[in-house]
Amino acid sequence: MNLACPIELGDLAERLAGTCVGNPHLLLTGVNGLAEAQRGELTFFTNQRYRDHLATTQASAVILKEEALEHFPLAEGKGAIVCGDPYLAFAKASSLFHPAPVFEPGIDSRAIVEPGAQIDPTATVMACAYVGKGAIVGPHAVLFPFVFVGEDARIQSRALLYPGVVVRERCVIGEGSILQPGVTIGGDGFGFAFDASVPCHFKIPQAGTVEIGREVEIGAGSAIDRATLGVTRIGDGTKIDNLVQIGHNVTVGPLSILCGQVGIAGSSSLGKGVICGGQVGLGNHLHICDGTRLGPKSGVMADVTEPGEYLGVPLVKARDFMRQQVAIQKGPDTLKALQKLERRVAELEAKLEAINEK
Amino acid sequence: MNLACPIELGDLAERLAGTCVGNPHLLLTGVNGLAEAQRGELTFFTNQRYRDHLATTQASAVILKEEALEHFPLAEGKGAIVCGDPYLAFAKASSLFHPAPVFEPGIDSRAIVEPGAQIDPTATVMACAYVGKGAIVGPHAVLFPFVFVGEDARIQSRALLYPGVVVRERCVIGEGSILQPGVTIGGDGFGFAFDASVPCHFKIPQAGTVEIGREVEIGAGSAIDRATLGVTRIGDGTKIDNLVQIGHNVTVGPLSILCGQVGIAGSSSLGKGVICGGQVGLGNHLHICDGTRLGPKSGVMADVTEPGEYLGVPLVKARDFMRQQVAIQKGPDTLKALQKLERRVAELEAKLEAINEK
Amino acid sequence: MNLACPIELGDLAERLAGTCVGNPHLLLTGVNGLAEAQRGELTFFTNQRYRDHLATTQASAVILKEEALEHFPLAEGKGAIVCGDPYLAFAKASSLFHPAPVFEPGIDSRAIVEPGAQIDPTATVMACAYVGKGAIVGPHAVLFPFVFVGEDARIQSRALLYPGVVVRERCVIGEGSILQPGVTIGGDGFGFAFDASVPCHFKIPQAGTVEIGREVEIGAGSAIDRATLGVTRIGDGTKIDNLVQIGHNVTVGPLSILCGQVGIAGSSSLGKGVICGGQVGLGNHLHICDGTRLGPKSGVMADVTEPGEYLGVPLVKARDFMRQQVAIQKGPDTLKALQKLERRVAELEAKLEAINEK
Repeated sequence: MNLACPIELGDLAERLAGTCVGNPHLLLTGVNGLAEAQRGELTFFTNQRYRDHLATTQASAVILKEEALEHFPLAEGKGAIVCGDPYLAFAKASSLFHPAPVFEPGIDSRAIVEPGAQIDPTATVMACAYVGKGAIVGPHAVLFPFVFVGEDARIQSRALLYPGVVVRERCVIGEGSILQPGVTIGGDGFGFAFDASVPCHFKIPQAGTVEIGREVEIGAGSAIDRATLGVTRIGDGTKIDNLVQIGHNVTVGPLSILCGQVGIAGSSSLGKGVICGGQVGLGNHLHICDGTRLGPKSGVMADVTEPGEYLGVPLVKARDFMRQQVAIQKGPDTLKALQKLERRVAELEAKLEAINEK
Repeated sequence: MNLACPIELGDLAERLAGTCVGNPHLLLTGVNGLAEAQRGELTFFTNQRYRDHLATTQASAVILKEEALEHFPLAEGKGAIVCGDPYLAFAKASSLFHPAPVFEPGIDSRAIVEPGAQIDPTATVMACAYVGKGAIVGPHAVLFPFVFVGEDARIQSRALLYPGVVVRERCVIGEGSILQPGVTIGGDGFGFAFDASVPCHFKIPQAGTVEIGREVEIGAGSAIDRATLGVTRIGDGTKIDNLVQIGHNVTVGPLSILCGQVGIAGSSSLGKGVICGGQVGLGNHLHICDGTRLGPKSGVMADVTEPGEYLGVPLVKARDFMRQQVAIQKGPDTLKALQKLERRVAELEAKLEAINEK
Repeated sequence: MNLACPIELGDLAERLAGTCVGNPHLLLTGVNGLAEAQRGELTFFTNQRYRDHLATTQASAVILKEEALEHFPLAEGKGAIVCGDPYLAFAKASSLFHPAPVFEPGIDSRAIVEPGAQIDPTATVMACAYVGKGAIVGPHAVLFPFVFVGEDARIQSRALLYPGVVVRERCVIGEGSILQPGVTIGGDGFGFAFDASVPCHFKIPQAGTVEIGREVEIGAGSAIDRATLGVTRIGDGTKIDNLVQIGHNVTVGPLSILCGQVGIAGSSSLGKGVICGGQVGLGNHLHICDGTRLGPKSGVMADVTEPGEYLGVPLVKARDFMRQQVAIQKGPDTLKALQKLERRVAELEAKLEAINEK
């Protein structure tokens, strides 16, 4: 649904379930940040740190909470939309001004579709995409050039696979999921058994698959390994950033967030709504409970059984991490203080000895 | 060699050089984990933590050590294979039930093979694979779609290159090696000399190559840079996980294990059988001796000359790391204890002063 | 410009603006390291640690500083080039012996160029490269097989895109920039607004672009996300290593160096000449000032406003990090010393009590 641009303030407020303040016929032509927005644009305000910008923004309209309204000068040609969650409302407004691209359905004559693949007539298969034997590509799914869909893989409806995505044999991509360029789904898990008699690391067959749920997004270059046996599973609505590595037989619960360069070793499981900051690492066979938040660069070596914020290598509660850091930063002074105290105690001991000898 | 399924317990025991316990004609149809296995399936037992599962597993047969046999109830229709290394035996059993895929030899008409490339008639070159001038592809090697083999590169026999693998000019992939999707071999090393007169970072030619040994595996998205001059070298039988970065002129010894997201800077060398946990980082021009084990997230800034287990940033022996962590976690309490002690000493000093003044 | 090989010492000295020492007609056939160089080769000397190698090198000529000349035995058939920056001079010498490859201009008949793309006649578009509608490929630009150039993207003159590079719609690659295999430019930024009413992470449109400056190099598998609105920007002359992740709306100043596996979260900005060691992580909305050097594995959670060397998680000045490490390593001993001191103080207190009671 491509929205005719521009759009009136009143219309927009209604679509966003907010309250229109000012002229409802004010025309808006786009969205932008508080500092960057120009005349005719819509912006939003959530961060108190930028309250001064509210008075100076060039934007014609601002989405904000009711209590912020008094700081926005409602001059001629200015308006506002008042709502409970301005960030979410702005995201929705932006998606009205920037509707998702629509792709022409059909199989490009330069695409490669092996016999026995089933491609829905509403799907888009671009030039130089490859679909293997027995693979299924559902309605409105989109395969960019250089996408590889292996034998018997299933790309569900509305899935969007950007250039260079590889979905190996028998893996499943759920409805509406988006795979950014260069994502690999279903590479072999990293499993070997050492055979001292050769010697070699004997390769354990990686005979399982990967199932990506619905409305999942996976960032550029991320790699999700197929299970040794069974399924590596990414839950519905989970969002994964770039260059994330997920080992064999991992389960990531629904609505989780994995930031850039996170690594999760084999057979670990994350609950629902788990948030991992950038470059977090998890060992294998661990369980992280629902609602856990792991700060950036954390290293997890044990189960997390209580939701909350955690940080550090090894992991501790975020509050404890901060206290420990204070102690670490005072460490050199602590050493000196201790030495000084040792000298004072030695002196006391000597003096007391002298008294006792009298 | 595709094994006819199912297979008899006695046969399997013989192939695994184990001892058959129970009915040798028991038919097995597949393999699975201790908790997941169903009737007709083979499983294995190594981890004492899961000993209770031995009594309840639905598996028809278990591979285990002799001492574990007493904990497995050998009912009608159940059997066991006793051997010294159940994990390795299970890996081998799994490979009998899941033989490696066999690919039809030949060059697909939609593949791109430049003049002067030599491709063995037993090799498989799939649609949309690219083989440059002067490149050699050996017997039974397999190139998936979107594999790029640069000029004068050599893909040795039985090498398996998944979609999106790039092997740049003159690099060599050894016999039986497996490159998961999106691996890059032979990207330019990261070498620049600062020229203040421009100013610019002047690019140092990266004129060397990469040689991947035999039976190496490299995980999805990993990148191994070509040498500035000479060769970046990965030893025989080494296994590398996903998203690993290996700089120019690095040497990794044979039979090493590099877990996910490890990074090794230029000109460093790893000995034989070195194990790097996930997200380990090594500085440049370092040497790590044979048999070293670097724990996850370690940061190495100096040579390791003594084999053993190490952890931390900067690296220390794993035992010392654990002790230091105890001290760090007690850090806030230590600070308080020190302050309290200072007060007690000050009090003592005052009292002693009073005594001496009497 | 492909230099006729071999080259005379005197010629070379002149090209490098150095002083020729020894026979100017000495013929040189290549370059190599101090330890590896053979007869006929040129090498260089900068690191005092290897001064003994100067006496034993097989190289026919060495580039060095004037003060090092006395340690190099100038025998018959040996020569030297004296200059102020031997490393830079060697880099330039190497580029004379290893000139950049020259590619035949033209569009391969097996390339895919959509209608409306403009490709300069001096550009090289290899087989199986893809150029979308409205894209522009400038003079002498080179697209390897499996390169994807999206709609309305611009590849400026002399840019070199290796296999598997993806440049999404509307992004710009500057003059002379080099993208190693598998680089993704313009993947969607990682932006979502949580909508508790569904619940879901609502995707914020990523409607901006990426602009890569001139003479930038980006390593294999790195991913640079497009801006939410506006532009993600990499400054002129900046060099980025493999598997680096750069979030939406980030700005990296000119002449910066980002080593392998660095991660920069959304909306952060790096000044001019910033150096990030391997696996460094930066949070979002941070500013790092010109000339900052962040040591390997650093984790940055706050602005850096003063240039200098930094290390650690959280970040501290490199000097302080080292001091803190000393204290950490003494941590277990500190605990023991404190306990011992507590006992001594308790003893003193008891003795003093006894004296006072007398």
